[in-house]
Amino acid sequence: MKVEYINPFLSATLEVLKTMAFMEAQPRPPVLKNNGDSLGDVSGIIGITGPVRGSLSLSFSSACILKIVANMLGEEFPAINAEIKDAVGELTNMISGAARQKLEALGYKSQSSLPTVVYGPNHQIKHRCEAPTIAIPFVTQAGPFVVEVSFANQ
Amino acid sequence: MKVEYINPFLSATLEVLKTMAFMEAQPRPPVLKNNGDSLGDVSGIIGITGPVRGSLSLSFSSACILKIVANMLGEEFPAINAEIKDAVGELTNMISGAARQKLEALGYKSQSSLPTVVYGPNHQIKHRCEAPTIAIPFVTQAGPFVVEVSFANQ
Repeated sequence: MKVEYINPFLSATLEVLKTMAFMEAQPRPPVLKNNGDSLGDVSGIIGITGPVRGSLSLSFSSACILKIVANMLGEEFPAINAEIKDAVGELTNMISGAARQKLEALGYKSQSSLPTVVYGPNHQIKHRCEAPTIAIPFVTQAGPFVVEVSFANQ
Repeated sequence: MKVEYINPFLSATLEVLKTMAFMEAQPRPPVLKNNGDSLGDVSGIIGITGPVRGSLSLSFSSACILKIVANMLGEEFPAINAEIKDAVGELTNMISGAARQKLEALGYKSQSSLPTVVYGPNHQIKHRCEAPTIAIPFVTQAGPFVVEVSFANQ
């Protein structure tokens, strides 16, 4: 996976979180993920096809996503419910869309599938791609979350 | 979602399981999934793009996937490990590929992303699609599993 694929996802995440949830996130240096130990309570996954083909996931702890969605919707939620899962799907869609626009500006036009949301305490996500998976950790006032991208050129 | 989208996934699942794991599965009638209560211990998820856009998932209990992969690889595994997760990704890829060939024969040419594998006891998968999600339950000698498809025409 080329390094130039990473930055569109990093900056798209920051932009969408700021615009939709009025939240500043601090990105930590992207890391090469060698095993499947990124854990989340709720994740959004979306497939990307085209000259750049792979998958994108966002994985949040409960505390982190409850705060993000409270900011997005102006309403507090005590636990993960259908609205939270819908919001995770929407965030995944928006970050994928914003990142794909940036990839297109670099000459890589791609399509995305529709997002799937996974819920379950401490589930693991493993991207199946010939190329390595890059994990971009983010820190917010409500805790950390992680964006993972795995892409191969066709 | 059109009914004619369902059968390619149903028959692709039966074919791949028979070819790869020498296992007969009995499909149960597909059901419209109204909430996110299909549970699995390990799932494969893949995105589909093109005129038919959406997502496909396969969700297995531990017992069921351990038996399927034992048949595939000719080796018993006591618990879900990296090889089992790889096999789930591979099965997802193959079923998606076989189903997309059948969809193409019906006039719907599509692309697929690369699969993502989710692991975590009793996780839930929710497809985010304007169209409903159809769940196709299968019964095998090692227990049940479920294939879910959610597609919208572009």
